Parts: sequence; C-alpha cells; structure tokens
Amino acid sequence: MPSHEQQTQADRLARLALNHAVEPADQHLGRLLEAHGPRRVLAAIRAGQLPDLDADPARRDRLADRCAGLRLRLEPGRVEAGLAAAEAVGARFVTPLDRDWPARLDDLGPQRPIGLWVAGNWCAETTARGDDAAHPQPLSIVGARACSGYGSHVAGLLGADLASAGACVVSGAAIGIDAAAHRGALAVGGSTIAVLACGIDRVYPRVHESLLRAIAQRGAVLSELPPGAAPTRFRFLHRNRLIAALGVGTVVVEAARRSGSLLTARLAGELGRAVMAVPGPVTSEQSVGAHELIRDGAILVATAAQVQEACANLADAPPTPARPSRARAADTSDEPPAVGRARTRARPGRAASAEPADPVEELVLEALFGAQTGTAKTSAGADVVALARATGLGPDAVFAALGRLAACGRVAKSGGGWVSVRGH
Amino acid sequence: MPSHEQQTQADRLARLALNHAVEPADQHLGRLLEAHGPRRVLAAIRAGQLPDLDADPARRDRLADRCAGLRLRLEPGRVEAGLAAAEAVGARFVTPLDRDWPARLDDLGPQRPIGLWVAGNWCAETTARGDDAAHPQPLSIVGARACSGYGSHVAGLLGADLASAGACVVSGAAIGIDAAAHRGALAVGGSTIAVLACGIDRVYPRVHESLLRAIAQRGAVLSELPPGAAPTRFRFLHRNRLIAALGVGTVVVEAARRSGSLLTARLAGELGRAVMAVPGPVTSEQSVGAHELIRDGAILVATAAQVQEACANLADAPPTPARPSRARAADTSDEPPAVGRARTRARPGRAASAEPADPVEELVLEALFGAQTGTAKTSAGADVVALARATGLGPDAVFAALGRLAACGRVAKSGGGWVSVRGH
Repeated sequence: MPSHEQQTQADRLARLALNHAVEPADQHLGRLLEAHGPRRVLAAIRAGQLPDLDADPARRDRLADRCAGLRLRLEPGRVEAGLAAAEAVGARFVTPLDRDWPARLDDLGPQRPIGLWVAGNWCAETTARGDDAAHPQPLSIVGARACSGYGSHVAGLLGADLASAGACVVSGAAIGIDAAAHRGALAVGGSTIAVLACGIDRVYPRVHESLLRAIAQRGAVLSELPPGAAPTRFRFLHRNRLIAALGVGTVVVEAARRSGSLLTARLAGELGRAVMAVPGPVTSEQSVGAHELIRDGAILVATAAQVQEACANLADAPPTPARPSRARAADTSDEPPAVGRARTRARPGRAASAEPADPVEELVLEALFGAQTGTAKTSAGADVVALARATGLGPDAVFAALGRLAACGRVAKSGGGWVSVRGH
Repeated sequence: MPSHEQQTQADRLARLALNHAVEPADQHLGRLLEAHGPRRVLAAIRAGQLPDLDADPARRDRLADRCAGLRLRLEPGRVEAGLAAAEAVGARFVTPLDRDWPARLDDLGPQRPIGLWVAGNWCAETTARGDDAAHPQPLSIVGARACSGYGSHVAGLLGADLASAGACVVSGAAIGIDAAAHRGALAVGGSTIAVLACGIDRVYPRVHESLLRAIAQRGAVLSELPPGAAPTRFRFLHRNRLIAALGVGTVVVEAARRSGSLLTARLAGELGRAVMAVPGPVTSEQSVGAHELIRDGAILVATAAQVQEACANLADAPPTPARPSRARAADTSDEPPAVGRARTRARPGRAASAEPADPVEELVLEALFGAQTGTAKTSAGADVVALARATGLGPDAVFAALGRLAACGRVAKSGGGWVSVRGH
C-alpha cells in the first residue's frame, strides 16, 4: 500500500495532468473531483469511463461525450512540455494539497482551480487568509481598460496607499486601471499580485512585459491555465473569479455600463467579500458602472482607509447563513463549462444585441476564431475533433453547437472543416 | 358668538402678529400653538401670562422669561409696516388655515412655520402633496456655495431635466449650486421655488436680484421670516428645514465635509423624504460631503430619472413605523429655540474648534455681532433688553448666556452694554 506522501505526490501529478485538459471553472468536473479525487477522475477519463463516476443516469450520455473531448487533450508529452515552459520563466505548479495553496480559493467550491501556476515571491504573499496579521491582506482592484486620467490617477493612489498600509494589491495586469493599481503598489515598494488569463509563460498584454517582470520580482504572478494557453474571452471571464476570491474585498475603480469589472465585483459579493466602488463625475461614461454598483449596494470608497474599514467591518460582521458560502453552489446546471447565464449580462466588450446566449456555442466560436487566426491555422477550416480539443468539450457537444450556429448563419462548412462567418 | 369665518380671520391675524415676534423653528411655542391656538397664545404673551398655558411647573420660570422677550417684539405698528413692505414686493401672508398652505410643512410638527410670506405664482405650485399628478412634484436641490464648475454644471443639468420632467425645483437662491439649479429650471421654462432666510422684501444675496425676480415671475419666492428680517446664520439653518420639508426628496450636489447642505439632507431623511446625493471625483474636496452622505445611506443619483425613481420608490414603500413621521418629535428638550445639538455638527462655515455648544449663546453672540455692525449700531454696546428683542429670547436667558460667554472671554461689558470680543 502506498504511503501518504506517495499518495499526495500521485494526487499532485494527477492534478497537473488534469490542469492541461480541463478549462477553468468547470464545475461538473469540479464536483467529480470533490467526490472521487484527481487520480480516479484522471484514470476514468483515460479509460473512457468518466460516466461511471456519476450516479445520475441522465448525465451519463453527456459525460461520455465530455470524456471523449478531455481524452483528446491528454496528449503524451504535454505535461512535460508545460513544466519545462514554466521552469523557463521561474514558475511552479501549486495544488490544494500544498502548504502555500491560497485557502480563499476554496470558497469557489466546485469552481476551485485544479491547480495554480505561480511565479515570484508566492510563498510569503497569499497563503494567509487575512486573519493572520503577519501577512499582507490581499485586496483586489479592478476597472476599465479604457479608463480616464482620473481613473488611472485614483487607481494608482489606492494601490500605493493600500500597499503602504500593508495590503497586497491583487489585479489582472490589464491595460488601464489594473496597471495603474499594480504600479501604485510597486512605486511604494509594496506587494502586488497579477492574475493572468493565459499561460504564465506568456506576456499579455505585450506592452506590460516590464510591468509583469517587476510584479514577479516584488510580488507574484499567477495563472490557473497551463503554460502556453492563449488568452480568450472565456478565460478572462473566469480569471475574474480568482481575483474576486483572492481578495478580502474588491474595489471597482471606473467601469463603464457593461464592464467585466462589474462581474468581478458581483462575484466577490457572492463569495462574501467586501464589494466597493470609487465614484467619479456623473458626466463620465467611465464611472457609470461604478455608480450603478453603488446603487446596487456596493460600498462607496474614496480613500484607502475607507477600503480597509469596509473589509474590517466585513470581518467583524457575524456570518450570514442566507448568503451561500460557496460560489454558485445553488447552480445545479450540468452544462460544462459553467458560464452561468446570469453572468453573461456583464460580459466585457460585447454589444447587447450580438450576445449569444449559449456558452457552449460561444466557446466553439472562440475556438474557430483561434483556428482561423492562431498558430493552429488551417486553410481547410477546423474539424470537430480539433474543436473539441481546443475547447475541452465533447465532440457531440461541439457538433450540436456547430449545427445551431450554422442555422443562424454564424458558421459554415468549408473544405471538410468549419469556419466562422463574418462578424466574428 | 363669532362665526367660523370670523374665527379664521382672527386666527390669521394672530399668526401674523406672532410671525413678527417668534424666531423660526421655536418648537416650544409651536407646542403651545398646537395646544391652545394662535389667539390664546398671542393674548397670553400680551398679558404676560404665557406660563399659565403650560401645565408643567418646571417650565414656568423659563416661560415667564420667554414671555417677556416676546412682548418686547410685539411693538405697535410692526405688523402694519410688515404688510406694507410685503405688498410693495407683491408678497402676501399664508397660514396653515389657508387653502394654499403647503401641507408638507405640517410634517415639521411643532417646528412648522407660524406662517409663510409668498411672492409669485404660489397658488399653482405647491399646494399639492405630490400624490396629485396635476401639480408639479417639488424636488429640493441643495449644495455648496463654493461649488466647482462640475457641480454647477450638474446642478444646472438636474434642475433643467427635473423641471422638463414636470418637477418643481426647490432651493435656497444662494450662490453656487442653488443658483445653478434654479437657473437650470428657468432655462427650460420650468417651475422653481426659492426659500429665503430673510424677509421676502430683501434681496439676498444682492447679486441674485435678477435671478430672484425671474424666480418670482416663473415660480415662487417664499420666506417664513417677517418682512425686513435680516439673514443670520441661525435663520439659514432653519430655512433649510423648509427646503427639506417642501420637497418630496432632497438632492445634494456637491457638499464639502461640514456643509450645511448635509444638514438639510439629514433633516429630509428624518422627515421621511428621499435623500439623494450626486457623486463626484474623490479628488475633489467639494464632493467629500456628498460621498459621506452616500456612505451613510443616501441614494446615489447621476440623472434626473434616478432622482424621480428614488422618489417614486419612496412613495411606493410601505410606511415605516420606526421612522418618526414628525421631525424631532423625539426631541423633548424645552430649550427654545430648538437648534438641536445633534445638528450643530454640520453647521456651515464653522471650524470645529470654535463651535459654541449652546444655541442660546450662539443667538446672543449673533445678535451682538448684528448690533455692532448692523443698522442698530450703538457705540455703547447692546443692553439686555435690546438683545432680548433681537433674539426673541427672554431677558433672563439673555443675561445668563452673557454671563457664561463673559466667563470664557467671548463678550465683555462696555459703556453700560455688552460687546462681543475679537474673533466673533
């Protein structure tokens, strides 16, 4: 019988393999992981027997299809290549079994990441749950990419003042508010964490190469995606849940009406974190979202002291049983991956009229777009297996989604494969 | 026995006389008025028998003193002079007995004005309680005198948009936010009401002569003070309660930390009105008060539509028994006049350190200052009777306050009278 350490080691390796196959926030897989552990789930996928892990016969057909999709992604050599790419940028893989796993992410329940890739001074930064005064309290600052000078100024001030007060500024390393918040923290020699929506070995956005390097030197950079993974809208969406979960509170500094930052803030609220927003001129489009958030109950904050006060008040408040302690625990949908419909309202950068309601269709469209422009470019269009591999969905689910998308003219057959039709 | 109409006429005349003697918001007199009616209260003052109207022996001594002070103000010919001055500017006296009395002021309870001087299109404007769709809904807009260009812009926009939507904009005709709100309403041919803190025959501030004329032509100008009354800080404070009570809601557009507008907003809340504030840049001192107000529970509003939505929601909400329907009903203090201590925190234009805690002392200081600079200038200092006449307080109360103020070096004897000492 294997020792406890051997079991831990095997679990870690299983999570590493699954990390390369499963897309973020896949709560169906997450539930199977909770119930059976990573080794059994991985073995079941490899053996094509994932359906056997679910007692509900109604879900078996769909699971068989998912299983086929995930198997396509368990390519030999992929894990080794990922580890090598991570090592080249000084990153390592951390799992919930490790001492430096950020326990706050456990609040995500079945949407908890399978593992995290981390670079920089990870250990010292975020292992504490914030109730430990010796560690910096993580605070998330998010906001518009297309921010105003005012927004950039205030994000920089907040980042600097919070870092000076001993907090660790968590953000997404994006252009705009994110960058200003990181820079504010760095400028005062403070601690800051960047959460990426792509592989940790990629530099995105390109213009933030030196910023990301500085963050890794002074704080930490992390991602739940395997090395090499490209940033996609789907991944940006789910990256936001990590920012929301890592902070004891989330501050929105400038957000337009349908900004993705509002989604992060709402998710932080669902996770029981403090939700805060910085007001601005009512004549500024960039503050409309922040004002709406305050009208919906977020705490108006004008200073770093008010941010810390809001988080302290939250910590002092008695637990509220009415609020679900695990995010989306009430979501009983079995459709993987779990982009809830309630969340699609606030997707970044989308016009309301062009919004596809179905998350599977959107993943397929995104993969098709990647196939037509990315490194896996094919002149003949992408076939169903390639799309299943790209999305982590099952071939049947991909085929059904292609049929629905073709019916409304968004995709078409081309040379034995599929292409997206103008507008996407 | 006199007819009902004769009684009404006599009551109206009694209120007219009392209006010239009693300072605004005198809730002790207000309670006696509620219990005994204006004719009995007036007769009791004239006969020096005001204490007989109060059953509580503990209050009798103080009432005897008040009675002496009020008698000093019931000078012969004063009412006639007041009526003539009002007529000269097209104003008339309206009492709670009249059909065009604004019923919302009744919510002020014992602090309800004894009567109002009105000029302009009064009748059509504010007799309705807002539940009557045929009448414009009064909405109060208040804010800083020293406002920013942003604040002035937003106040003008709100005034115009609310007036365009059929609301009547209520404000205080002050420089800054008030003027911008009035002008916004006038610019779209809308309705607006200015509530003054001086006699209706006076133009204050002087630079608003043409603005006040325009308001009287298109809307209405009103004051609870008798014609000729000078604007004092005490009167500005209590003018604010009329602005709070007249509107179905109060919007604060820019307010510094200790702005008097915050007082108006808080009072509006106590009266069960909608309390709203417009956010601004957190880098602007002029928005600090508005942001604090929102943090304390005021509704953030960015547009006229949101203002109207907040007022509509308030109207739809079930009555909350916890909220006192009459302002300051819980205040059992018998000290006239009723400048509650809780309110002094937000007095406009005062540094915290120089704040006199006692409202009677403040009234005496204000009257002394007026005596030293105003038309009633005396080289010998003001005597106790003159101060009692100027304040409406009793001579004993004035004398006691002078003693306390002398003890801390704020007033001194000079040539048989009293003068205030440097700094006031």
